Amino acid sequence: MTAPAAAGRARFERVAVIGVGLIGGSFALALKARGACGTIVGVGRDPGNMRVARERGIVDAVETDPGAAVRGADLVLVATPVAQFPALFERIVPSLSSTALLMDAGSTKQDVVAAARSALGARVGQFVPAHPIAGAEHSGAAAAKADLFAGKRVVLAPLPENPPASVDAVAGAWEACGARTFRMGAAEHDAVFAAVSHLPHLLAYALVHEYAGRPNSGQLFGYAAGGFRDFTRIASSHPEMWRDICTANRVALVAELDRYVDKLRALRKPLLAGDGAALETVFREARSARNRWLAGEFEP
Amino acid sequence: MTAPAAAGRARFERVAVIGVGLIGGSFALALKARGACGTIVGVGRDPGNMRVARERGIVDAVETDPGAAVRGADLVLVATPVAQFPALFERIVPSLSSTALLMDAGSTKQDVVAAARSALGARVGQFVPAHPIAGAEHSGAAAAKADLFAGKRVVLAPLPENPPASVDAVAGAWEACGARTFRMGAAEHDAVFAAVSHLPHLLAYALVHEYAGRPNSGQLFGYAAGGFRDFTRIASSHPEMWRDICTANRVALVAELDRYVDKLRALRKPLLAGDGAALETVFREARSARNRWLAGEFEP
Repeated sequence: MTAPAAAGRARFERVAVIGVGLIGGSFALALKARGACGTIVGVGRDPGNMRVARERGIVDAVETDPGAAVRGADLVLVATPVAQFPALFERIVPSLSSTALLMDAGSTKQDVVAAARSALGARVGQFVPAHPIAGAEHSGAAAAKADLFAGKRVVLAPLPENPPASVDAVAGAWEACGARTFRMGAAEHDAVFAAVSHLPHLLAYALVHEYAGRPNSGQLFGYAAGGFRDFTRIASSHPEMWRDICTANRVALVAELDRYVDKLRALRKPLLAGDGAALETVFREARSARNRWLAGEFEP
Repeated sequence: MTAPAAAGRARFERVAVIGVGLIGGSFALALKARGACGTIVGVGRDPGNMRVARERGIVDAVETDPGAAVRGADLVLVATPVAQFPALFERIVPSLSSTALLMDAGSTKQDVVAAARSALGARVGQFVPAHPIAGAEHSGAAAAKADLFAGKRVVLAPLPENPPASVDAVAGAWEACGARTFRMGAAEHDAVFAAVSHLPHLLAYALVHEYAGRPNSGQLFGYAAGGFRDFTRIASSHPEMWRDICTANRVALVAELDRYVDKLRALRKPLLAGDGAALETVFREARSARNRWLAGEFEP
């Protein structure tokens, strides 16, 4: 049974977390720390990672079969790379209780919704799409922490079929983890995150890969400093996860990539002409916008 | 008089620091902390910044006239934005002692060398080009700190006219600040830093500026998270300084920009085709290279 949605008042008796990595593991730790759940069963492919999940008390039990794991669960979180969602949804639907809430932590939403519709059919109303805006370049149960979502944002992309109480209950679960929840459509979500998350990852991977392939890569990395380190931090992110995100959201991502290349082409002109005033204007406006963002001026 | 060059044994009686910002101010603090200098006179255009430099004990005296400041100095550091170098060199040459060492902290070298040759003429051997690989998005005397260069790299780009003892003395000054010194040609320097420093700054400024100009900029920045914050940290860098660096090194920077745009075009194909395997290979290789870099595997 799920409690009312007010922040922190959510309570789940049996929670199944499929994919006990940074996100799934931190969600489990946060619910436990808040006393917002009973038993948590974890599902994972990697025995070593699941051993860590057990040893760290992230999960109370480990299952290898997702179907068995969700049996009797009132809340199911799918937190694997998104490419595994279609097969996973198919596996769990037969044993998913008709009163259970199913949610995900995928970084893309339109593809996840399509997979859920295909697998759940008339029961798709049980699935409430969610995307916690939290992460790190580290991954796995070893990186999970109870406060990962504290003060972070979670975007819910509710379906027309979702009962409002179900959306509120999912919001309550994330709020119990310390997060603030927001709601928007799946297509709008994918466009926003293609811009502020997916493109920066692609750009960072591309820059590091470009220099790693140069004959003088040792010299280049040898002189790279703090600016390069921070600019490329996200190029240490999980390759499989980002492969899935980029392919799943490729339409919106290609659109943002093309707009960015156009932006670089436009900047190339004053650069080549040595037009310092034009460059300084762009740099000043960018710094001003970023500093206003850091000051908390922008709210969704 | 300059002491032998062995690390830490450099000693300068009167040091003139022209441009008492993060770099010039930190150099002064480091020399003082190491007892490697007598008096330090600072030159700056901004009275407020120079007051901070005096109050923090970064400099012992303040001059507004660079010519007066270098009179009697045995070491002169020019640490202003590089665009000011030509005029500054012209102003200090008449009062520069024939035994004084002149060095800079500019992020570009070919343009600085050209300016020095033009102003110093036959005395260009007194100028030892240097580039400390240290910085932050903060600037000004208030941001200066004695340990800014500890363990950092300083590239020296010696001229054929430099007496070896002068190059060693400049190396000794930076080593007294805790830095490790390396030597390469000015053109090679500019090509390396166009890649690992100047391009990342341009890319970060461009991304922030692009989103700041969108009708939904509030929404975009509202959902931007830690990855975006680190990727764009250098977009909070000093606009005037980066205007000068980008224009001074525009030939090498445009070349790197074009190669990067080609790289993005090449990545666009597997992205558009949803070729996850090709993307994952790039992401894995990039992460591997970056992690090897973080592990210290790359040395100049």
